[in-house]
Amino acid sequence: MAVAVKALFFDVFGTLVDWRTSIAREAGAMLEPKGFALDWLAFADAWRGEYQGAMDEVRSGRIGFCKLDVLHRRNLERILPRFAIEGLSEDDRRELNLAWHRLDAWPDVAPGLARLKRRYLLAPVSNGNISLMVDLARRNALPWDAILGAEIAGDYKPKPGVYLAAAAAFDLPPHECMMVAAHTSDLMAAAELGLRTGHIARPNEHGRGRGETGPREPVDVAGSSLEDLADKLIA
Amino acid sequence: MAVAVKALFFDVFGTLVDWRTSIAREAGAMLEPKGFALDWLAFADAWRGEYQGAMDEVRSGRIGFCKLDVLHRRNLERILPRFAIEGLSEDDRRELNLAWHRLDAWPDVAPGLARLKRRYLLAPVSNGNISLMVDLARRNALPWDAILGAEIAGDYKPKPGVYLAAAAAFDLPPHECMMVAAHTSDLMAAAELGLRTGHIARPNEHGRGRGETGPREPVDVAGSSLEDLADKLIA
Repeated sequence: MAVAVKALFFDVFGTLVDWRTSIAREAGAMLEPKGFALDWLAFADAWRGEYQGAMDEVRSGRIGFCKLDVLHRRNLERILPRFAIEGLSEDDRRELNLAWHRLDAWPDVAPGLARLKRRYLLAPVSNGNISLMVDLARRNALPWDAILGAEIAGDYKPKPGVYLAAAAAFDLPPHECMMVAAHTSDLMAAAELGLRTGHIARPNEHGRGRGETGPREPVDVAGSSLEDLADKLIA
Repeated sequence: MAVAVKALFFDVFGTLVDWRTSIAREAGAMLEPKGFALDWLAFADAWRGEYQGAMDEVRSGRIGFCKLDVLHRRNLERILPRFAIEGLSEDDRRELNLAWHRLDAWPDVAPGLARLKRRYLLAPVSNGNISLMVDLARRNALPWDAILGAEIAGDYKPKPGVYLAAAAAFDLPPHECMMVAAHTSDLMAAAELGLRTGHIARPNEHGRGRGETGPREPVDVAGSSLEDLADKLIA
């Protein structure tokens, strides 16, 4: 690349962490002892299925900015009846909502980030809130320099302000920052603002073969994992 | 303490880093080769002397929030003529202003924070901007969970919003957070909002014997260093 990239910004859900099997595991572990038996992967998909619509309420200005934890809770209330889950206490619901703070990273993430940290500033630029990002970082050894993203910007990706606030926090022009994601749409929104783009294949994000196996539009670099990205960026 | 503290918030300038000798060293290293010979500790004191007044402009609402880097630059322009420093290019001035990104921590800080991190969430709640905090963390191995403080809150300590925004970012009530500082005034502002307080003695912050040797008002815990604080909190 002609201009050196100084910071890498990471999408988190799907790109760094396997939200689907983690949510299925957490929900099952909590609700099966209470007598609920169901397809927990379908439950995870349904919960995540409400994600974009809830953020659209904020992006459009229909509701003010609130943390993703709040939207996750609202989405949980919507899907519980669909799975005939009744009788959960307020504490149960709050605890279940924190399943999103206990997601596991894909196995390449911690070693890949450790290598990338020696060369680049690293930050999540996620729609997840700061406390959620902190819990995922502690759980998965994600060596962030700072937690950036939606809560810093007061809006949700792919709104331009989220990417631009992240670059501004590091005192960098957009073209010295690279957005890294497993979702082409996230990368295209960043590219439109001048950021560089790095795609990571996560073919199993939504179940086997139901994630992006590669970028659907041109990007600056594409990798099969964060370790592959580190090989390509630090070659 | 009756209620368990879950997060420690740290003041940075003076409490964790020795701004005075670091600024004197950085300014001398840059300006002596350009032919300027002066008392660099006095230069550091003068620069820091403009600090509170500049932030008061923001606290009072007379000017909008801007990063501390911007205020440091404005303060630099004020003091250069006092020391008869002339002829610096824009690049020189920008580089000199970044001296604040190259401050050294007191020797107890990295080992103390490493121990405290095993028990508590850790974040700077400083008036310094995110990029400044990131550079100090990289330089001094400060293992932050997140960078909180003025830039997150859009205001400067001791305004209440800065402390409250930090607690809110971690989803914690104020009484589960402890502010740690070498300045009693910072701790009293935090205590008024319900945060716990930890004082660190930095007797040489402003030169030998010209820093706080202990808290000037009652605090929850007082230590002679971060290692001493770790001994007392983790006992």
